[in-house]
Amino acid sequence: MSTTEGMLALEQAAQELLFTEARTANTFTDEPVSTEQVQAIYDLVKWGPTAMNTQPLRLVAVRSPEARERLVAHMADGNKAKTASAPLTLIVTSDADFHEHLPQVFPHKPDARDMMAANPGREQMARFNASIQLGYLIVGIRAAGLAAGPMAGFDAEGLKKEFLADTNQHVVAVVNVGKPGPDAWFPRNPRLDYAQVVTEV
Amino acid sequence: MSTTEGMLALEQAAQELLFTEARTANTFTDEPVSTEQVQAIYDLVKWGPTAMNTQPLRLVAVRSPEARERLVAHMADGNKAKTASAPLTLIVTSDADFHEHLPQVFPHKPDARDMMAANPGREQMARFNASIQLGYLIVGIRAAGLAAGPMAGFDAEGLKKEFLADTNQHVVAVVNVGKPGPDAWFPRNPRLDYAQVVTEV
Repeated sequence: MSTTEGMLALEQAAQELLFTEARTANTFTDEPVSTEQVQAIYDLVKWGPTAMNTQPLRLVAVRSPEARERLVAHMADGNKAKTASAPLTLIVTSDADFHEHLPQVFPHKPDARDMMAANPGREQMARFNASIQLGYLIVGIRAAGLAAGPMAGFDAEGLKKEFLADTNQHVVAVVNVGKPGPDAWFPRNPRLDYAQVVTEV
Repeated sequence: MSTTEGMLALEQAAQELLFTEARTANTFTDEPVSTEQVQAIYDLVKWGPTAMNTQPLRLVAVRSPEARERLVAHMADGNKAKTASAPLTLIVTSDADFHEHLPQVFPHKPDARDMMAANPGREQMARFNASIQLGYLIVGIRAAGLAAGPMAGFDAEGLKKEFLADTNQHVVAVVNVGKPGPDAWFPRNPRLDYAQVVTEV
């Protein structure tokens, strides 16, 4: 038993669901993921904090067979089969035009939109905060009792042209979502030890 | 009642602890955060997935009064008082030398370290994956029954020189950790609606 056993407020079953027993799935059953499930996931993880409440994460939920075919064509070869096997795939993007929503989401600073419009670091800020939100999203997919399969291997420019041509959104990741299928897991890779990651001063 | 009520596997109390009732704290009590608590948080969130299991997140846990004084000096003016009020602050960094650990964490691909050593995108990959891990970390701090106060306003180069001079780590964020103090919360800012964030195709 670890010396840190019992030190968390989160109950054991939730720890297992979200982190300690959760795994990246590489195959999926054909059980659908409903729009209501995606909405429930979003309505949970939207509360995670972002800088200036910017919330730049956007999602394209790819469900129709026609759209899924277009998606798979832009995935790296090693990701095509597993993406094709998922009932739903989320294209996760960062919206560099997030500042257009600041009057809605950061109402106590009325000049925030105009200040951010002129900020050359806006696209990087969008990517950074959307990446934090991607962490929340993966936790949220698991909170719905589903498996997430996040991937970094794809043609980002191809996906942008195919699905996001008229936007200022940039693809950050692609995440398969569904119930794990046969042989869904690779052996679990080791994690770094606490002493390799945390230094106390 | 929302139409998505009851659609999550995660129990209501855990949803509230991690997301729906959790808030970014702006003041803290002087109740200490122990090393064992930080370790319990790490031992939970280390299981969150990263690309190629790279795990580039590193933490400097700033606890001693002397180190906390050096930290506060590099925070933006608006963040100095709340940082000074926290019992513990985490400097969250991305380690661009994460590839040195690949033989340990990605053992089935023995050439991964050398391939990544020559990859000019390594620093950006480190920052991206550490940002995802920052999302897990904020969830994990809340899982420990503590409040997180993530901040983006600081002198990143100053912090690097002060705390990380001999490393290839880059500061991603600074996060206060503790029990919320008096008047810890600002009014909660609105979140974007589902229809503003998710498009189904």
